[in-house]
Amino acid sequence: MSDEAGMKRALQAYIDHFNASDPAAIAGLYADDATVEDPVGAELIRGREAIAAFYQRSVATGARLKLAAPIRASHANEAAMAFDVQLNMPQGPALIRVIDTFKFDAHGKFTSMRAFWGPSDMEMPG
Amino acid sequence: MSDEAGMKRALQAYIDHFNASDPAAIAGLYADDATVEDPVGAELIRGREAIAAFYQRSVATGARLKLAAPIRASHANEAAMAFDVQLNMPQGPALIRVIDTFKFDAHGKFTSMRAFWGPSDMEMPG
Repeated sequence: MSDEAGMKRALQAYIDHFNASDPAAIAGLYADDATVEDPVGAELIRGREAIAAFYQRSVATGARLKLAAPIRASHANEAAMAFDVQLNMPQGPALIRVIDTFKFDAHGKFTSMRAFWGPSDMEMPG
Repeated sequence: MSDEAGMKRALQAYIDHFNASDPAAIAGLYADDATVEDPVGAELIRGREAIAAFYQRSVATGARLKLAAPIRASHANEAAMAFDVQLNMPQGPALIRVIDTFKFDAHGKFTSMRAFWGPSDMEMPG
């Protein structure tokens, strides 16, 4: 059985913590032995320590996340969301269009995140 | 290596074939031994014959699919899209908010589709 409301709150918290530049709070949404695949096709980042370092680097870019559509749940322990990553490059504003999927453990923590985006989903300035 | 443009064309064709009420054309996008999990958490539908029957039932509802954001690719053989299913119920228009993820084989056919939506993603009339 899925806790749709709880999963949606966790995904919204992910967005909010990112936009508050709080990588420790993002990492706190993950289980100890979770994995991150960002982008899909990249090597897995394993464990909360490595995940926290990943978000520290990500947040340091100054990027902001903006939902592109309401968060989706499912009939299982998984949820997904489409959002845009807004970046300020020296040349001007840039955008990466992403869909993240998340699996949850019984405690409502992420056990895995997978980020769907490719070079063709990036809009670079100039 | 991923063929981002080819994957995005296939996902757009999925939308277009659905809206043209052509379940055989949708099934033709799948590999012979593909699986469909719709919604995530449901029993897998296995093989193109069962998948064709699934889309025949789906199309018979008169539903129409509308992208909620541009289709996303990835750095691997996977892509994803967020869309709304627009349904006409006897009581009025209804909506289901969905994110589908797809894996591809080397021939550009879907080997699996997973549909993220739960009861909380449905907007029913009344």
